[in-house]
Amino acid sequence: MHFADRLLDACRKKGNAVCAGIDPRWELLPLEIRRRHGGRTLGAMAAAFEEFSLRMLDIVAPLVPVVKPQSAFFEACGPAGMAAQQKVLAKAKALGLVTILDNKRGDIASTAEAYADAALAGTQCAGVRQPVWAADALTINPYLGRDAVEPFITSARRCEGGVFVLVRTSNPGAKQFQDLRADGKPVYQHVAEAVGAWSAENLGASGFGDVGAVVGATHPEELALVRQWLPHIVLLVPGYGAQGGGGADTASAFRPDGAGAIINSSRGIMAAFKPDDPGWEQAIDQAARTAITDLLQVTPMKALGLKFA
Amino acid sequence: MHFADRLLDACRKKGNAVCAGIDPRWELLPLEIRRRHGGRTLGAMAAAFEEFSLRMLDIVAPLVPVVKPQSAFFEACGPAGMAAQQKVLAKAKALGLVTILDNKRGDIASTAEAYADAALAGTQCAGVRQPVWAADALTINPYLGRDAVEPFITSARRCEGGVFVLVRTSNPGAKQFQDLRADGKPVYQHVAEAVGAWSAENLGASGFGDVGAVVGATHPEELALVRQWLPHIVLLVPGYGAQGGGGADTASAFRPDGAGAIINSSRGIMAAFKPDDPGWEQAIDQAARTAITDLLQVTPMKALGLKFA
Repeated sequence: MHFADRLLDACRKKGNAVCAGIDPRWELLPLEIRRRHGGRTLGAMAAAFEEFSLRMLDIVAPLVPVVKPQSAFFEACGPAGMAAQQKVLAKAKALGLVTILDNKRGDIASTAEAYADAALAGTQCAGVRQPVWAADALTINPYLGRDAVEPFITSARRCEGGVFVLVRTSNPGAKQFQDLRADGKPVYQHVAEAVGAWSAENLGASGFGDVGAVVGATHPEELALVRQWLPHIVLLVPGYGAQGGGGADTASAFRPDGAGAIINSSRGIMAAFKPDDPGWEQAIDQAARTAITDLLQVTPMKALGLKFA
Repeated sequence: MHFADRLLDACRKKGNAVCAGIDPRWELLPLEIRRRHGGRTLGAMAAAFEEFSLRMLDIVAPLVPVVKPQSAFFEACGPAGMAAQQKVLAKAKALGLVTILDNKRGDIASTAEAYADAALAGTQCAGVRQPVWAADALTINPYLGRDAVEPFITSARRCEGGVFVLVRTSNPGAKQFQDLRADGKPVYQHVAEAVGAWSAENLGASGFGDVGAVVGATHPEELALVRQWLPHIVLLVPGYGAQGGGGADTASAFRPDGAGAIINSSRGIMAAFKPDDPGWEQAIDQAARTAITDLLQVTPMKALGLKFA
């Protein structure tokens, strides 16, 4: 099934469009897990990240349609961390979640192809594609231009996956280059228009393409503009919750039928407890439900079909 | 020692400013190595990449000052590939080479910090920094802006390392966003000026800063412009050789005293043989010498002090 259709289908099944970000950091983990692994080596830290992430998946899988592991925190533990990332993505897929590997890759030609195939279609090895990270989609950086983006799209189309291109990021410094005005419009609009063209090459039955855009919830006006310019692209919206974006700020990312946007919450869900709280699993469950409820109240997400209150 | 001083010192010791890119791809490896490892699994492919890269290091270490492993090809083999990348960087350092991890990272806040510390200063673990990739420098993507770049600079300064920011890349599509004109100048000039300011915060005794810029040899005019705008930044120049940039095209990257630029050659050195050539090691040695000789003839590099003819 086309990536955008699969994504929308998953949202309708869960009755919401929330993505739970998985950004494991040692100081945010439950003490229980930290104590078991000790954390005196990068391997032990990776094992703790893996245990936490796998248990978190069990909690959020019945609630949300999408998860987004943040590759940097796994990479911080070296090869053992990358092995943990692989297991987390595999379990998420096994639980029926749509997976977005947030690794913001970007390079040219065969190098881009290597990153893309690792994340999506699999690395060619002895004549067959062998899965590496095996995510459904990844995030990429557009600065290198068209021929640096195309290998990612090619790899995604080989496995009915998706690509999310950074358009307007959620950080305060995003404006430095993204808001420079060229030919009467900001750079991020030039990027958005390119994303629109790439996405239009391959629309699913839902009318959405397989190349989406990342636009931060911290910029609600820009979010509304991108939605208006490009009705056919899926928006992945970080910045809701801990980064300061309110639920209502994400409303304009959606079409009136509740389709077209995925709202990510990372620390708001995965770090919704004090490390010494023995009830941390219930706290994650509750935080995911709170995020969903908040967004159902203030965005068109409820049109997806309410599944729990 | 300050990164730029260490880099210039390494160039003077070797009498050239050539960087040997290490971009292992299965179809480019010597048959001898492919046969020994079989390559039926990603682990076997990683072992072949590792053997090739380590043997290549022994060949180029007496000749060039810098090596640049391309992370994508190691990542393509999964966790085993990342372990190989770690060994390649460790051996390069042990051989006295300056190492640039070409992984083009870019993210915000604590996420950028995780990538930066993995590449440079080491991940904080049980109160101490533990080395992960332990390179001397890495490449980063500027699209996310100032606060996404700063964690990389902070990590670099913690370990006297360096950062190379993509400014004008060597690929044909680079112009799509990098050449958009805003406030009368192209986006890549805005980025270059930001790099100039970051770099000026921490100059070494050589007068160069620890934040450099990547500018492709395929754009000689832009290379000359960036050199002129920013006399104090080190330029990392890809695109020489296989990508079409000629030796003379890189001349303008140097200051008259031969300082300020590092010219990368990847396929031109590491793939300078037919896979069935039993003399592939001599071919790599010869190709490295040819690249050096070519560049010594047509650039100010010879002012570094000729070490071999």
